[in-house]
Amino acid sequence: MTTSTSARTRLTPEQRRAQLLDLGLELLGTRSLEELSIDVLAEEAGISRGLMYHYFGSKLGFYEAVVQHAADDLFDRTAPPPDGEPLERLLACLTAYVDYVIDNTVGYRSLVRAASGGNDAVRAIYERTFTAMGERFFSVDSGTIELQPTPATRLVIRAWQAMVEDLVLAWCDDPAGLTRDDLLRVVTGSLPALLATLP
Amino acid sequence: MTTSTSARTRLTPEQRRAQLLDLGLELLGTRSLEELSIDVLAEEAGISRGLMYHYFGSKLGFYEAVVQHAADDLFDRTAPPPDGEPLERLLACLTAYVDYVIDNTVGYRSLVRAASGGNDAVRAIYERTFTAMGERFFSVDSGTIELQPTPATRLVIRAWQAMVEDLVLAWCDDPAGLTRDDLLRVVTGSLPALLATLP
Repeated sequence: MTTSTSARTRLTPEQRRAQLLDLGLELLGTRSLEELSIDVLAEEAGISRGLMYHYFGSKLGFYEAVVQHAADDLFDRTAPPPDGEPLERLLACLTAYVDYVIDNTVGYRSLVRAASGGNDAVRAIYERTFTAMGERFFSVDSGTIELQPTPATRLVIRAWQAMVEDLVLAWCDDPAGLTRDDLLRVVTGSLPALLATLP
Repeated sequence: MTTSTSARTRLTPEQRRAQLLDLGLELLGTRSLEELSIDVLAEEAGISRGLMYHYFGSKLGFYEAVVQHAADDLFDRTAPPPDGEPLERLLACLTAYVDYVIDNTVGYRSLVRAASGGNDAVRAIYERTFTAMGERFFSVDSGTIELQPTPATRLVIRAWQAMVEDLVLAWCDDPAGLTRDDLLRVVTGSLPALLATLP
């Protein structure tokens, strides 16, 4: 107890805020966004609600900070590996994505739902991340398969992302006889298959 | 004016209600669900708000009736033609779907958004229609391509539907250099391409 208190007092406000965001992210593994209130996090972190408002300004500020942190985390975790064949790198990205959704199904589903529904702040964060993940296909450095950045390719990539999201979330509810490897084969193989339908 | 009034008085309440739902549907071509209130419809139909409540019971009753009517309309319009080769029938279905979304972009987008967001009644109607449209692939009578109704095929069909929905709505915003025919080639060709990725 003494150790933990002294460790806590040594953190800067930025570090403490980051620590609280990590805790919020962890809670999102098994809770929806709606269930993740300032009260819940204050209780889990063992600090007062007043201090939570000190760190996040308002309920909305807290909510947005957690969503942004979750989106950054997803983006980082699905970064393509620096080396390897294009399709291997694509598979590595998609494996990281699938595992992220498996590990954070409840929170991820609630994020998607909030973004599709009327929450403008969540939608903006979601759209930025979704677009940034799609843009990885158009840069040499990003690895995976490299595509020509035409408007039509962008349109198809976006729709493919929507499909993968729906497929992986539905698979988490009911695997329908598909193993994780089968699922990975479908999501990885579907991208070149879909691009081949373009004129 | 006299003609219109006498024609109106000859309608049964069921006919009048159906007429109001048709008008609601028509308005959804250019308005979102949120913009379509009992007041707007009462004004467009030239009847009192009191009479609207008589026909629909409540604001929610009205809202749900219009959404159900829109969903039934979409389902009917995308029915496969009775004859033809499987891929031709699939193309006919998808052409009807694409044209429906083109003609009703604003209302359709708001329906999808309301269903993905927190509106349970809209979500239930949307999900039933979405599932029924997907189930057409598993019946001999429904035409189009006929598939084995395995859980894995159902999972992929569902994800493909989500992709087509996203793709067509995004194309309505920005065609990205693709003609309507190009778009139809992508949505039609993507289904067999996607199914081929299953183990």
